[in-house]
Amino acid sequence: MARVDYYDDPAAPAINSVVPSVTVAVLDDQGRLLLIHKIDNDLWALPGGGHDAGESIVDTAVREVQEETGVDVEIVGLVGTYTDPRHVMAYDDGEVRQQFSLCFAGRVLGGSAREDGTETKAVRWVEPADIPSLNIHPSMRLRIEHALDERRSAPYLG
Amino acid sequence: MARVDYYDDPAAPAINSVVPSVTVAVLDDQGRLLLIHKIDNDLWALPGGGHDAGESIVDTAVREVQEETGVDVEIVGLVGTYTDPRHVMAYDDGEVRQQFSLCFAGRVLGGSAREDGTETKAVRWVEPADIPSLNIHPSMRLRIEHALDERRSAPYLG
Repeated sequence: MARVDYYDDPAAPAINSVVPSVTVAVLDDQGRLLLIHKIDNDLWALPGGGHDAGESIVDTAVREVQEETGVDVEIVGLVGTYTDPRHVMAYDDGEVRQQFSLCFAGRVLGGSAREDGTETKAVRWVEPADIPSLNIHPSMRLRIEHALDERRSAPYLG
Repeated sequence: MARVDYYDDPAAPAINSVVPSVTVAVLDDQGRLLLIHKIDNDLWALPGGGHDAGESIVDTAVREVQEETGVDVEIVGLVGTYTDPRHVMAYDDGEVRQQFSLCFAGRVLGGSAREDGTETKAVRWVEPADIPSLNIHPSMRLRIEHALDERRSAPYLG
């Protein structure tokens, strides 16, 4: 489904939906970060997605990483909350969501990175030094920076 | 609006709604916890309520404490996430929500505790030693215990 992001834009349509969602920052034992590459918009991102009714938000995080990357993780911490109502996502069916996302920290239990054939993404373990040169949405880059900042002892609350 | 809570109950109706909500644990400079007393069901609880579209979840927390207690707070931390799908709340208009709540830690900025006339609640600063004898729902007591546990350095994730 096509989606248009608005950020602090007076032209953004009115919010009519709030769907909790997650992203997950997973580091391997070499300190590389698990990222997905969305072919349609050429953006790199943390794996993640929307909460389904009937699951805990931690279940959502584990499920989305498995579905999108093939990697099995456990959730070991919370990087932060990202619920800025100035970030609005408009879908082509008329749904207009405000950002409402939790970013978790995950640890690898098993599995191996593989492309998600149905959503046409690439999946890579990326060296932190290579992240600045990747095309990443500012709202996603903020979460990655928080996840990689070892000085941060408490979750970001936004 | 009348509400029935189900906890791990096979007779609970099917979930048809997810609304992010908050509770807030506010301690004063004497170490007392801000609690509200719901007259209708005789339960004590942390102040809190549901997210409104167009606000950040931190805005929700500040607004709900002000509305329910008269106390102005800033949010200084996250106690945990409480999103157990086995906790289901059925409202008399047919809405059936699963639990989806974040518990924040708040610090007093100003205002003073006063009853919320429209929702018929009592508001009290309660000594931690007096909390065990109060009538508190188990899911709420869990959050209070986490909030008062000074050994806890990271948010509870559930």
